[in-house]
Amino acid sequence: MRSPILLVAAVCVALSPEEDIRQVLVKQQRDWNRGDVRAFMEGYEKSDSVTFVGATISRGWDKVLARYLDKYPTADKMGSLTFSGVEIKMLGADYASALGRFSLKRSKEGGGDATGLFTLLLRKTPAGWKIVLDHTG
Amino acid sequence: MRSPILLVAAVCVALSPEEDIRQVLVKQQRDWNRGDVRAFMEGYEKSDSVTFVGATISRGWDKVLARYLDKYPTADKMGSLTFSGVEIKMLGADYASALGRFSLKRSKEGGGDATGLFTLLLRKTPAGWKIVLDHTG
Repeated sequence: MRSPILLVAAVCVALSPEEDIRQVLVKQQRDWNRGDVRAFMEGYEKSDSVTFVGATISRGWDKVLARYLDKYPTADKMGSLTFSGVEIKMLGADYASALGRFSLKRSKEGGGDATGLFTLLLRKTPAGWKIVLDHTG
Repeated sequence: MRSPILLVAAVCVALSPEEDIRQVLVKQQRDWNRGDVRAFMEGYEKSDSVTFVGATISRGWDKVLARYLDKYPTADKMGSLTFSGVEIKMLGADYASALGRFSLKRSKEGGGDATGLFTLLLRKTPAGWKIVLDHTG
């Protein structure tokens, strides 16, 4: 009799790139909601060119992390994050774009609720799909 | 003696995809500054999926055009458009991203000067490089 373990392995391998990308965002949401900004940052490509576009441009992994730490220094300010309406579009085999809405549920002390649209550009890297460009605002 | 015309033709063919994309933005700027929103819209892919992300999402060429006509109904409101600091990144052979700043010089009656950052996703189509996703804000 065949082991059912083999079947499970096959299903895992068969995850589509789109599903892999969704999992990056699911993990980011979970890490944010545990208050772990550094784990959240694993969703971004660890490079000097990774770019966050908000009111200004932050370039390089360290700068993007520094912006998050500066803007969200406490659990109150981080609040509870939800991504919704996420649409993913493959751009060939190695790139994809994602469009969606973020919502932060926060106390009055934390700055109150916040929401906005984001567009991401992701690249397939040896470490998995990573965000290379994030335009939020 | 060889005709110099052949040489000129060869130089034209050798324009890089990045230069082609820059020309799309140069044309948009020029068309905007002539007050021709429909010509400006030729920079966008004429499809139901072309998407403009601002405060809200406008989807489809007609909706994107309608947004521009609604927001910029007069020459005063359109003002004079400049794109600056434009960085283009190829994403394989058929897609590219662009990041830059727009600046609108306008009279007080037109709403005053305005500026912001944009990220674009462009696709190589039979009709040339076209914007398929525009996030401006």
